[in-house]
Amino acid sequence: MSRIAAFGEVMMRLETPGFSTLSQSNRLEYSFSGSGVNVLSALSRFGHETYLASTLPDNPLGDAALANLRKLGIQTGFVNRGGRYIGMYFLEHGFGLRPSKVTYSDRLGSSFNTVPHAAGDWERIADSVDAVHFCGITLAMNELARTQIKQLARAVKSRGGKVIFDCNYRPSLWGADGYALAKPHYREMLELADIAFMNEKDALLTLGMASSAADPHSQLLELIPQVAKEYGIGTIAGTHRHVNGDNTHTLSGYLHAEEGFWFSRPSTFSVYDRVGAGDAYASGIIHACLRGDDAQYAVDYATAAAVLAHTVHGDTPIATEADIVKAMTRTAGDVER
Amino acid sequence: MSRIAAFGEVMMRLETPGFSTLSQSNRLEYSFSGSGVNVLSALSRFGHETYLASTLPDNPLGDAALANLRKLGIQTGFVNRGGRYIGMYFLEHGFGLRPSKVTYSDRLGSSFNTVPHAAGDWERIADSVDAVHFCGITLAMNELARTQIKQLARAVKSRGGKVIFDCNYRPSLWGADGYALAKPHYREMLELADIAFMNEKDALLTLGMASSAADPHSQLLELIPQVAKEYGIGTIAGTHRHVNGDNTHTLSGYLHAEEGFWFSRPSTFSVYDRVGAGDAYASGIIHACLRGDDAQYAVDYATAAAVLAHTVHGDTPIATEADIVKAMTRTAGDVER
Amino acid sequence: MSRIAAFGEVMMRLETPGFSTLSQSNRLEYSFSGSGVNVLSALSRFGHETYLASTLPDNPLGDAALANLRKLGIQTGFVNRGGRYIGMYFLEHGFGLRPSKVTYSDRLGSSFNTVPHAAGDWERIADSVDAVHFCGITLAMNELARTQIKQLARAVKSRGGKVIFDCNYRPSLWGADGYALAKPHYREMLELADIAFMNEKDALLTLGMASSAADPHSQLLELIPQVAKEYGIGTIAGTHRHVNGDNTHTLSGYLHAEEGFWFSRPSTFSVYDRVGAGDAYASGIIHACLRGDDAQYAVDYATAAAVLAHTVHGDTPIATEADIVKAMTRTAGDVER
Amino acid sequence: MSRIAAFGEVMMRLETPGFSTLSQSNRLEYSFSGSGVNVLSALSRFGHETYLASTLPDNPLGDAALANLRKLGIQTGFVNRGGRYIGMYFLEHGFGLRPSKVTYSDRLGSSFNTVPHAAGDWERIADSVDAVHFCGITLAMNELARTQIKQLARAVKSRGGKVIFDCNYRPSLWGADGYALAKPHYREMLELADIAFMNEKDALLTLGMASSAADPHSQLLELIPQVAKEYGIGTIAGTHRHVNGDNTHTLSGYLHAEEGFWFSRPSTFSVYDRVGAGDAYASGIIHACLRGDDAQYAVDYATAAAVLAHTVHGDTPIATEADIVKAMTRTAGDVER
Amino acid sequence: MSRIAAFGEVMMRLETPGFSTLSQSNRLEYSFSGSGVNVLSALSRFGHETYLASTLPDNPLGDAALANLRKLGIQTGFVNRGGRYIGMYFLEHGFGLRPSKVTYSDRLGSSFNTVPHAAGDWERIADSVDAVHFCGITLAMNELARTQIKQLARAVKSRGGKVIFDCNYRPSLWGADGYALAKPHYREMLELADIAFMNEKDALLTLGMASSAADPHSQLLELIPQVAKEYGIGTIAGTHRHVNGDNTHTLSGYLHAEEGFWFSRPSTFSVYDRVGAGDAYASGIIHACLRGDDAQYAVDYATAAAVLAHTVHGDTPIATEADIVKAMTRTAGDVER
Amino acid sequence: MSRIAAFGEVMMRLETPGFSTLSQSNRLEYSFSGSGVNVLSALSRFGHETYLASTLPDNPLGDAALANLRKLGIQTGFVNRGGRYIGMYFLEHGFGLRPSKVTYSDRLGSSFNTVPHAAGDWERIADSVDAVHFCGITLAMNELARTQIKQLARAVKSRGGKVIFDCNYRPSLWGADGYALAKPHYREMLELADIAFMNEKDALLTLGMASSAADPHSQLLELIPQVAKEYGIGTIAGTHRHVNGDNTHTLSGYLHAEEGFWFSRPSTFSVYDRVGAGDAYASGIIHACLRGDDAQYAVDYATAAAVLAHTVHGDTPIATEADIVKAMTRTAGDVER
Repeated sequence: MSRIAAFGEVMMRLETPGFSTLSQSNRLEYSFSGSGVNVLSALSRFGHETYLASTLPDNPLGDAALANLRKLGIQTGFVNRGGRYIGMYFLEHGFGLRPSKVTYSDRLGSSFNTVPHAAGDWERIADSVDAVHFCGITLAMNELARTQIKQLARAVKSRGGKVIFDCNYRPSLWGADGYALAKPHYREMLELADIAFMNEKDALLTLGMASSAADPHSQLLELIPQVAKEYGIGTIAGTHRHVNGDNTHTLSGYLHAEEGFWFSRPSTFSVYDRVGAGDAYASGIIHACLRGDDAQYAVDYATAAAVLAHTVHGDTPIATEADIVKAMTRTAGDVER
Repeated sequence: MSRIAAFGEVMMRLETPGFSTLSQSNRLEYSFSGSGVNVLSALSRFGHETYLASTLPDNPLGDAALANLRKLGIQTGFVNRGGRYIGMYFLEHGFGLRPSKVTYSDRLGSSFNTVPHAAGDWERIADSVDAVHFCGITLAMNELARTQIKQLARAVKSRGGKVIFDCNYRPSLWGADGYALAKPHYREMLELADIAFMNEKDALLTLGMASSAADPHSQLLELIPQVAKEYGIGTIAGTHRHVNGDNTHTLSGYLHAEEGFWFSRPSTFSVYDRVGAGDAYASGIIHACLRGDDAQYAVDYATAAAVLAHTVHGDTPIATEADIVKAMTRTAGDVER
Repeated sequence: MSRIAAFGEVMMRLETPGFSTLSQSNRLEYSFSGSGVNVLSALSRFGHETYLASTLPDNPLGDAALANLRKLGIQTGFVNRGGRYIGMYFLEHGFGLRPSKVTYSDRLGSSFNTVPHAAGDWERIADSVDAVHFCGITLAMNELARTQIKQLARAVKSRGGKVIFDCNYRPSLWGADGYALAKPHYREMLELADIAFMNEKDALLTLGMASSAADPHSQLLELIPQVAKEYGIGTIAGTHRHVNGDNTHTLSGYLHAEEGFWFSRPSTFSVYDRVGAGDAYASGIIHACLRGDDAQYAVDYATAAAVLAHTVHGDTPIATEADIVKAMTRTAGDVER
Repeated sequence: MSRIAAFGEVMMRLETPGFSTLSQSNRLEYSFSGSGVNVLSALSRFGHETYLASTLPDNPLGDAALANLRKLGIQTGFVNRGGRYIGMYFLEHGFGLRPSKVTYSDRLGSSFNTVPHAAGDWERIADSVDAVHFCGITLAMNELARTQIKQLARAVKSRGGKVIFDCNYRPSLWGADGYALAKPHYREMLELADIAFMNEKDALLTLGMASSAADPHSQLLELIPQVAKEYGIGTIAGTHRHVNGDNTHTLSGYLHAEEGFWFSRPSTFSVYDRVGAGDAYASGIIHACLRGDDAQYAVDYATAAAVLAHTVHGDTPIATEADIVKAMTRTAGDVER
Repeated sequence: MSRIAAFGEVMMRLETPGFSTLSQSNRLEYSFSGSGVNVLSALSRFGHETYLASTLPDNPLGDAALANLRKLGIQTGFVNRGGRYIGMYFLEHGFGLRPSKVTYSDRLGSSFNTVPHAAGDWERIADSVDAVHFCGITLAMNELARTQIKQLARAVKSRGGKVIFDCNYRPSLWGADGYALAKPHYREMLELADIAFMNEKDALLTLGMASSAADPHSQLLELIPQVAKEYGIGTIAGTHRHVNGDNTHTLSGYLHAEEGFWFSRPSTFSVYDRVGAGDAYASGIIHACLRGDDAQYAVDYATAAAVLAHTVHGDTPIATEADIVKAMTRTAGDVER
Repeated sequence: MSRIAAFGEVMMRLETPGFSTLSQSNRLEYSFSGSGVNVLSALSRFGHETYLASTLPDNPLGDAALANLRKLGIQTGFVNRGGRYIGMYFLEHGFGLRPSKVTYSDRLGSSFNTVPHAAGDWERIADSVDAVHFCGITLAMNELARTQIKQLARAVKSRGGKVIFDCNYRPSLWGADGYALAKPHYREMLELADIAFMNEKDALLTLGMASSAADPHSQLLELIPQVAKEYGIGTIAGTHRHVNGDNTHTLSGYLHAEEGFWFSRPSTFSVYDRVGAGDAYASGIIHACLRGDDAQYAVDYATAAAVLAHTVHGDTPIATEADIVKAMTRTAGDVER
């Protein structure tokens, strides 16, 4: 098994119970997540040693976040303490036609986005791990976050570790002219990446590539090999999701490596909690790639991990390898006792 | 925007959490609603000034009701205090084939049904508003309720305000020979009404009209224009609902005005909490009519409001105009963040 | 062990959690109690067979009440079904200087107060039991309740069973001129009683007796033997309570039988839930008397039962005989494990 | 109506709320169930007098179990107290592709499985009832359980009471070579049975019978009459269940009596809580058979009871006869008020 | 009754239930408060018309805050919408020797502290009210808050309205050299004030006055008349609090007006929720002063209001005038029913 | 800071909320604790590296226990997986005179008490730590537990690590003749111990020593130095507790080292949750001793840690060193914000 770090913000998720809005309710449940947290938690369940690099305030909210990271199986020795706030978001669960709503608190003022890591931290982290995970959400934050992402990526790369980058472009974070602002940073990260998560939309919009094809699948087949070649990325993977009218989603995964494309069969399923499913997919690909599984197994495993993540409360995947292997073959069954 | 009053009872809704019965559980959640409350709450969210005329006991339950009316955005200056009890109903949520069950406490002994408004109240209310909403449920209560409904309706009418009447015939409230008992009171209210909510069943059963057609749609096309003509009602609107086998309902709205009929497309959707959807439809029609929207927009807006009301916990619609406009075009989507 | 019935109303208690008011909260917990219910529940734990005679509506609230009576160990074969409402009260827990508040729903319209038992019910009950318990609260309700109380009391008495009457005068239920209204009914019940619960205040105010003494203790010593003699009551018992400033109460019990007076030592204790403590005292006296314990043991046992009832959530005593015997000697102790 | 006993273990069910796992949550809800408990609770609602024969520890968990049995309408006079532990299982609710998980505590060390009933108990029970229910789960426990099952079955049989046996073979309880181990005990019970619950799988696997047919329905038609003949069982009944992909199940019931086979129409429905549905089916058959309903009514009634049991929280059916009769004809409907 | 405005921030209070810490729990309850909110809520219960001037974000958290302000009886027409965040604080309840802990989120980035009111707002507010309340906490925020406080204070003053200023100096908000930073702003506000809340500590530390006396009471007697004279303040009032060892506090109030000093008797009481008690005291003084009650009544009423505020969950006082009048005379009593 | 292991069972604590009994409630909260867990959790907060040696089942309950150990800051690499059950106890909180009740599930059948650690485990643990903690509760379990305790103690001792032994004699676990059964095992452990927790009762009853003194304090002064000398124990510490009548306890600590006795001042305080306070005391002594603090500081620090542990929900101390240092000097204070 491998030693894997992630660099990213820890967010406090505060959600109203059931399907009530913030105006209707007076209660919240909270948990701690983040793209890096979610990926590491899943990898920890798969047997890897995982380390989060992040910054949390030195107050009871930071303490609670740390305790919950440990609960998820993540080692917290590289978590910096300082600054004043933990990033927060409030979640109101939608139902049917009524969409879920996310309301952020002050994200740019958070400890993660204002307090730099100490000199030498990147080197110590890079010395301790085989791979490191980054996410486009962090890249969208501010100059400090972007600088630190790149410092850590280079430190790991220079020691022979693998750089994993999940494009995860969020339009609301980059604002107007977002694609133009984002493009140089995404290019820089893809140059460093050994494993990248994206699909044809990232190629078209963020990287500004052009396609002669009209439908997403054809665009994917055309553009992803070009990205792999241009940036020298060994493994590129991602998903296509379709939201159906009846509270089900349909998901299919793909993986591109030097030899070609592999696809999982589309899976249609009821959705309990959609957040974090992309991170579950990423964790499945990373696990299979680091272990050297064959590509078809990797994409099937990752897709099953993603599907299971929709059946779990909270952002963070909790499936074990055994759970996922069962789900790769199983259809819905009777209670097990 | 307009100033709109409603006259109706405030009910305390007490429901067991989840899908447990009163014998299984030992906990309840409570809220305050009522047909008038629901319509006003929706209209308040659409930007109107809303006033409830009702009576509540001067005890902690009445205080809690008032506080929650204010929370819904309803002005409570016309709420009379006195009498001894607030109307209550207990709700056990069904699941699938097991229906929801409603159990009432002593409804006729409530403050609303036993304590008359003071002399001069109707005039003061009528002076303050552009329109007033009534509902057939109140008409079913007792002579006091019926007398007061008509006093207020005439006071508003005589000052040029609009009278809105929702037929809302409930067989269980009128008892045996209910249609015969109800007919003269319904006729009296329809004589006063500028906007009425009903469908062909009300015309056939409550008003005792006859139709040459066999299917509901044809009956509607035949009878509603007759009602509009006989009672001189400018706008008549209503819905047809079909309960499907798979926990979905299908709903379509209609609106009849002098120029003819307008219909919304039938909408099929999962149901989270069905109570209050009719009031949401009414609020949509009232809002669009008072603002002078065209009839097709009105019926589409009202239908979307009704559909959204099925996705919300509690009797009271909480959608804003922006939510409804989005829902008029949207199909189910991914989480928004 | 004995077979004991009680005749009295089952009340649904609905309380806000913690110390919130009905305006602050939106949740309730409910349970079912009543003076007869509380006494029988305690006696059931002491090993007696207990039967409630009462009337409950044939709806889900009545079903829930019945299920909870059975849970308390009370046999429900003599519970009549009919009428429309269960009596209810809402409880907001006070703290320190802020008193608890009780708000009743429509009590006189309840099934118990409107639906008479069928002919022959009193005889069947009287044939089945050794003793029957009544309470002054029922006497305060209406003519139906008073008639039925007396019918059942006479039926039991005529078959040699014991009649137990707890005076429990509630000023708010009898209204203005209450003592005068109540007096003939109290006299009638005391004529029938073998065991009565009261203290000097009942003698002075309800029975209109006069005392030459000034302080309550001396009045008790003077009046209770007169009551015993005048009405031919073998056992009279009761308590004196003092509410201290620091959230503690001080309670002492007395028992008068032909040979004289017995008193328990005053006990001072913290109060968790005060309602139902008088019923716990009564149950202790009844248990000890029916078993033939000596008078000092009876009054000590009953006082300990009453003190324990203050430490328990809800109106209904839950202590076993073993718990009470321990409490008769114990001071506060460390956790037992 | 009849007097019916069941002999079986009372289990404490502890479940995490919603769809959280034991690692995610820190709260549990508990209830008390068991195959015999479930069947008796349903029969009690249908109007029968029901008695549980079981053993519970003399500690607060045993007290809580007893109180909840009474709440379900079951008489507890034949419940033995002793031993040290109540059987427990933890339930984590699955969602969609993620299955529910059941984790048992020490089952064989429970009071039920370690403490024998006193001499004379079987005779006293047998003297008091018209029928007794047993379940294959108890048969799987240990020698004590098996001995006691047979003692009670013979005592009832010898007095002319009916013996009801639900095969309910659980592979996880019998372990490797389970069918071989189980066979003699199942044969012994079937020899005693007047009513048996099973289907073709029990005949093939547990009884080791052979069938010339390939599909389950044909096997059922071939084997069940053989079983009825060989063991002299008047009534054999059971269900076929199919788990569909969309969180619905399809269920159909059958009943075989001397005159032939009766089948209910397959019913497809959403599942809220699957546990206990088999017991609901059994209770429906028992009720109809003891009352002498015709066979088609019996199988329709039992199937409706089973379907309703899937819509109810907890293991224990709560439908009344009126609920079931409604469900026999109804399709999903609007709220009833 | 009067029309009273307050200018101040609305804070979202998020608290763990019971006595758990943020690391132990995963649940929060939330409510909305603030010094101005608390004072207005109390005054609204006393019968005044109350208006909050504040700024809230135009998102679901802002909507929830508004709904809850309305629930408290506060008119929200002067609440500005804009900016991005609502101020928040997390509260962990201490027990005994373990103190409660408050953790703030980003306070200076809140809507209130970043978005100015529109031109003309101050004039419209000043035209609508008889008095306006400010608090030293707002003064501590930033230049925008300070500018706006003074603009509104002058606008009200210039129209003959009363200016009320509660010194409420919080060392943690002003930081190092806080008293020196604060002094000019406090002086400016006191120049404008008609009613001020403070005690000798404010005079000594914030205003930098000197006293020849050593004990607080003597310092109060010496300094407050000087403050009244120097700044021309008609009414100055405040409290002395002593925290006792046994979870009780002792509180006494004073009021200084031109004729001299009035004091309430010290009151000792158990504390349930200490936050907001100072605002309750202020509301009592304001109410009595605006109504023209005599000074001794005012200080007794305000002290009773403050004591009751310690017995209530949440920051916001909920006592009615009747509750307070009862508490002015009452000692702890038995349950009222 | 040091590396410290503990060997002991992880218990699942399941408690009813508030003050309800298991018969009254239907909900539980659960957490994971144990003497070793509690001591390690406290030491982890003080900055030490901590490791638990224990055995947990490989099922969802074991997974939940592990996750919660990590949350407490304990490293779980030495936790063995296997066996079938986790130890459990149910806790009903008492109030005042009504004592708390603890009900155990099958403790001897737990994974910890039935599954031995693998060969080599003791050596690997002993190689990794500076000290190891044991508790008399483990010694009471069975021969397997006793054998393993001694194996690990000798392994640590032989490598120069410190052995810590908390006598913690529980009469209910040793049964009749318990002291005689326990004595040889306690002697063996004390022979190995460098730090021991006990008081005069352990010396008198478990070790069977005799004292010429009558009162506990004199007995302590006489016996503890004899124990220290006979068994060669450098540090012996413990507490005296007195349960007062008013829900407060009084606690004082002592520490004996070669130079003599040190005592803390008795502290009297309200009790929120008593369980785990002894472990908090032990953790304070261990921390101070390992760091080389002077003896008076050690006993004061440990006593403050123990007092704080009574103010915290759950068995496990959560105070940080800063919290404890504050509590060493503080009296109850106002809210900190």
